[in-house]
Amino acid sequence: LAKYLVTGSSGFVARHFIQLLIDLGESCQVIGADRGAPRWEFAHTGAISLRHERIDLLEKNDIGALLENYTPDYIVHLASLSSVASSWHDPVGSYQNNTNIFLNIIEGARQMGLKSRILSIGSSEEYGVTQSDQMPITEEHSLNPESPYAVARVSQELLAKLYAKNLGLDIILTRSFNHLGPGQRENFFIPSVIRQLLTAKQAGLQKCEIQVGNTELVRDFTDVRDVVSAYRLLLAKGISGEVYNVCRGVGHRLSDLINLAADIIGINVFLRPLPKLFRPTDMPIIIGSSDRLHTATGWSSRIDLQQSLTDIIHEMKAK
Amino acid sequence: LAKYLVTGSSGFVARHFIQLLIDLGESCQVIGADRGAPRWEFAHTGAISLRHERIDLLEKNDIGALLENYTPDYIVHLASLSSVASSWHDPVGSYQNNTNIFLNIIEGARQMGLKSRILSIGSSEEYGVTQSDQMPITEEHSLNPESPYAVARVSQELLAKLYAKNLGLDIILTRSFNHLGPGQRENFFIPSVIRQLLTAKQAGLQKCEIQVGNTELVRDFTDVRDVVSAYRLLLAKGISGEVYNVCRGVGHRLSDLINLAADIIGINVFLRPLPKLFRPTDMPIIIGSSDRLHTATGWSSRIDLQQSLTDIIHEMKAK
Repeated sequence: LAKYLVTGSSGFVARHFIQLLIDLGESCQVIGADRGAPRWEFAHTGAISLRHERIDLLEKNDIGALLENYTPDYIVHLASLSSVASSWHDPVGSYQNNTNIFLNIIEGARQMGLKSRILSIGSSEEYGVTQSDQMPITEEHSLNPESPYAVARVSQELLAKLYAKNLGLDIILTRSFNHLGPGQRENFFIPSVIRQLLTAKQAGLQKCEIQVGNTELVRDFTDVRDVVSAYRLLLAKGISGEVYNVCRGVGHRLSDLINLAADIIGINVFLRPLPKLFRPTDMPIIIGSSDRLHTATGWSSRIDLQQSLTDIIHEMKAK
Repeated sequence: LAKYLVTGSSGFVARHFIQLLIDLGESCQVIGADRGAPRWEFAHTGAISLRHERIDLLEKNDIGALLENYTPDYIVHLASLSSVASSWHDPVGSYQNNTNIFLNIIEGARQMGLKSRILSIGSSEEYGVTQSDQMPITEEHSLNPESPYAVARVSQELLAKLYAKNLGLDIILTRSFNHLGPGQRENFFIPSVIRQLLTAKQAGLQKCEIQVGNTELVRDFTDVRDVVSAYRLLLAKGISGEVYNVCRGVGHRLSDLINLAADIIGINVFLRPLPKLFRPTDMPIIIGSSDRLHTATGWSSRIDLQQSLTDIIHEMKAK
């Protein structure tokens, strides 16, 4: 019976990863590890046995004990403080809750001689400043991290490669681009916009004005359900020590996403750009190449933006 | 009155940095910060006022309080677990006592809005695997860290650049190559060889056999007194956010160093290579370019190997 350890289990991505395991219908054991209580309930857990552990991954003795007792086959390390904006306010917190928690896990696995296959999640933020004519970004592109969060992720990646190449651990690395999908916290861009549109619609308005930053930015969004499908395929077929972009290779203007969401909801939207919401370091275009991921695993995305937004809106209406 | 904070003050490099300040004869205040008690006594402290603080730099509140009370003009951050070999046995310890202690210092300085000029020491180990035809290594060379220590130093450098470029701190970075000089711990290569030669000489032997690893390796050694002179010049003239190699640009075979030391001591030496002491990742040649340092500061080395070894032998004889 395969044993999974899913860190950050009360988070957005973990919810969908665990749901994928449930949907696949294979028997397996899953321990979710998180500082917080589970934020999700699953309608049924099917063939999987699921249990949550409250644990602070900064406590290396606690994570060590969990690894020793559970000896997972797969460690799906989704725990992260993943907000770029917050990392500017608390760089040490971002560093510790990305780089140091990861180091605690891999060092625990090393000390116990675990054979676990470990998934180390990184971010397209690691690429930093990239010229528009260099799209799509491949994994060979240089890393020029420009935020505390991005620096923490690059540091995590250096450690992951070291432990994979020089210390015998089995670690697959990703650089994951923008996600969207049901359950993302409402301080993220897309759910915050949809919340405003829904509130206006529910108040009976025909038109809604939204204050925005630069919505001409082009980003490469993947539905979180496609993302976790890529993660599972990488656990099955990825090469240890190798890093894989997780993205679709398709760019969309943020304004197009907003307009599409407004169409689905049935409201007119008017975007009011506020200079104070513009960030000087925002790249005009970020699009990744998923060739390496596709070649290694056969993965491709299945859920288009229309479907993603429809599902997000459906779930947010219900709340 | 300029105020210096010198971390790692009981260490090898700090001893010589403080001695340099004494020798310069300018009045200044120096606080040495270290987990351990001072390992050195200075014959006189001249015009400087010197005080030691026992402090664990992993305790961010303690370093924060020290920065707040002292508000140094210069932070000369020499504290480090700098052994590559030890980092393989304790990667987390190496990471925390290089990267995290540095982050605690710069974040403390940021939170207090200090205008301190900070010296962040890095290592030639950051370059990792480098082909012999790429010598001398300039600062533009890619970083391919191959040990936990090297990864920790690259991570430190990412943080230093981020805080200098995006968070307004004044930080000069180095990548320092091999040092030698009086006071280096005897687990390092040169003092350990000299100790064996001296022991044989003092026992009245004419000949001494030493078990060694690969002594055909070529390294770029700089006397520690030249190194600290470079550090002081960089504090005066370096550009914030810029990284500088600290090296001489001259390579010497390790076997030549041993033979030179044996000549000075007056003993014949026979080197017996032991396969178990060969490290597979050791580069045959590491030589750096000090052009950037020279151009920025006018620095050049003044102490040749003969002088360095003579001074080391003199001090080790006295112990």
